[in-house]
Amino acid sequence: MAESQSGGEFDLIARYFRPLSRAAPGAFALRNDGALLTPPEGAGLVVTKDLMVAGVHYPEGEDPAILARRLLRVNLSDLAAMGAAASAYALGLALPEGGAEAWVEAFAAGLAQDQERFGVALIGGDMVATQGPAVLSLTAFGTVRGDACLTRSGAGAGDDIHVSGSIGDATLGLRAVQGGLAALTAEDRAALAVRFRLPEPRLALGAALVGCATCAIDISDGLVADLGHLCAESGVGARIEADAVPLSPTARRAVGAGEAALADLVIGGDDYELLFCAPRPERDAVEALGRRLDLALTRIGTIERGQDVALVNAEGRPLPLPRSGYRHFREPAGRDAR
Amino acid sequence: MAESQSGGEFDLIARYFRPLSRAAPGAFALRNDGALLTPPEGAGLVVTKDLMVAGVHYPEGEDPAILARRLLRVNLSDLAAMGAAASAYALGLALPEGGAEAWVEAFAAGLAQDQERFGVALIGGDMVATQGPAVLSLTAFGTVRGDACLTRSGAGAGDDIHVSGSIGDATLGLRAVQGGLAALTAEDRAALAVRFRLPEPRLALGAALVGCATCAIDISDGLVADLGHLCAESGVGARIEADAVPLSPTARRAVGAGEAALADLVIGGDDYELLFCAPRPERDAVEALGRRLDLALTRIGTIERGQDVALVNAEGRPLPLPRSGYRHFREPAGRDAR
Repeated sequence: MAESQSGGEFDLIARYFRPLSRAAPGAFALRNDGALLTPPEGAGLVVTKDLMVAGVHYPEGEDPAILARRLLRVNLSDLAAMGAAASAYALGLALPEGGAEAWVEAFAAGLAQDQERFGVALIGGDMVATQGPAVLSLTAFGTVRGDACLTRSGAGAGDDIHVSGSIGDATLGLRAVQGGLAALTAEDRAALAVRFRLPEPRLALGAALVGCATCAIDISDGLVADLGHLCAESGVGARIEADAVPLSPTARRAVGAGEAALADLVIGGDDYELLFCAPRPERDAVEALGRRLDLALTRIGTIERGQDVALVNAEGRPLPLPRSGYRHFREPAGRDAR
Repeated sequence: MAESQSGGEFDLIARYFRPLSRAAPGAFALRNDGALLTPPEGAGLVVTKDLMVAGVHYPEGEDPAILARRLLRVNLSDLAAMGAAASAYALGLALPEGGAEAWVEAFAAGLAQDQERFGVALIGGDMVATQGPAVLSLTAFGTVRGDACLTRSGAGAGDDIHVSGSIGDATLGLRAVQGGLAALTAEDRAALAVRFRLPEPRLALGAALVGCATCAIDISDGLVADLGHLCAESGVGARIEADAVPLSPTARRAVGAGEAALADLVIGGDDYELLFCAPRPERDAVEALGRRLDLALTRIGTIERGQDVALVNAEGRPLPLPRSGYRHFREPAGRDAR
């Protein structure tokens, strides 16, 4: 983290980021050109990298502590989807020139809070100035035994499709953040906003799924789009039962109040729940796992031959789906803004 | 590399970046949430991350292939400074909305060229849109035996200070890129510009220095500033003999023509040569290493007790140094632009 900084950036790194590296001896207190990771004997290292851009992935003016935690969590969610135990992360911050120290302080405080919670440490990175909006980059590291990680490509026809937690809360949460959902109570809106702003990486679930699930992905682009990714990489199709898709009580109220349709929720992104497949004989094991983790794991459909992803109603008839997939927080004119 | 992308970004990744991941099975052809690195038995993994911002670290309009190679090389240079063998990298691109496919194609072509040269492969990353200038982030991975990496903190009083290659060419090269150095020939200006735009990571040297050097750093902020970093981390001072600082014939011509003073060159950044210390008994070994690598290794001074970094003339008198250290390509009004 000690490269390419002007004097002010050196000071900020020393004051706010160095303390975040304390638990990682290989971070050299951010005083080196790089960090040294020494994975346990026989371990494989899982690496993932996600960026967030001000005005695109989050509204300008968002609380820096929330941003920091969200940036860390979306990356940890990728580790979870691969079944890895999270260990460390590196940070790349391009911040507007003349950026306030208070912003960095709050950002680092957010990291400190979630570092402790998820057992990871900062090992390095870079901080530079930009003339444009902030660009926040994070590279997260985790470990698996040998090469035993989950991928997107192992689903087979007949596999059950499971999903953790509830679907669509983040989509509704973004609407709440943007001032929508007038038909809900302030309490409901606040609860949904938290689900958008602070996703919960399903690390314990991901690690426990190694050896049981045939494939996994975290839902960032939306249930339908991400199931599409799984199917494409596995060379299969899928059928989801609309009635089986788990909604939170709050999301049910939103649907009941006419604030959203189920179709909006299954194509909306940012839930960061895990979507995974497992052979039918693993059904009991998956149920037991959900009980052990105290986390809802819901069977929502079946992998099929072919390549279509269909959402069907109770009579088995396909329901129409609007354009699916991830859309940026703010998009160029002429495309849907969500 | 398959996260958070809209349709167009998926296509660009598949077309231009997927081929760059071919040599790395753990990259899963960029189809996964992350990559799997399996370091050799007993190896430590070195991680480094550097960002470049358009208009700050390089002029807008720079050839994307050159940018890609420079981004990779400055990160590989950090691996070199730690004595690591380069193995892989992850990419984080925030590109202006509506960015041309031709830009991505040229950027990927630059990566392809240098990947082959340095024996590394793309293992993942993220590509997103920004409303501001491009922000290019790269995380590079290398391996060392166990925890045997070079750091900045081992210099001891009496150690020789060595530097690879020649100093100041990149500073002059930036001036050439900006239209300066009128007193030099077009050929000289072009040669210097290459030294700025395409630094040479000293990977073979770095790896060979493990067990011989007491500390090392790559010169990004400038010889004086980076020596200052080494000294600060090692708790020592240093004395450099001005006449010993190795200049290229072209740089000598620039100094002779009054285009630059030696002081400008020792404080200028971006050379990406290695600066390292070694005990006097290693002098023969360092000389032999230079011959073996066909790379100039020049002894330029001595580590001393204390904490001052001095540049002295032939009579041992300190020479004055202007403000030293890294400065961005473009800086806020009121500070020096270089």
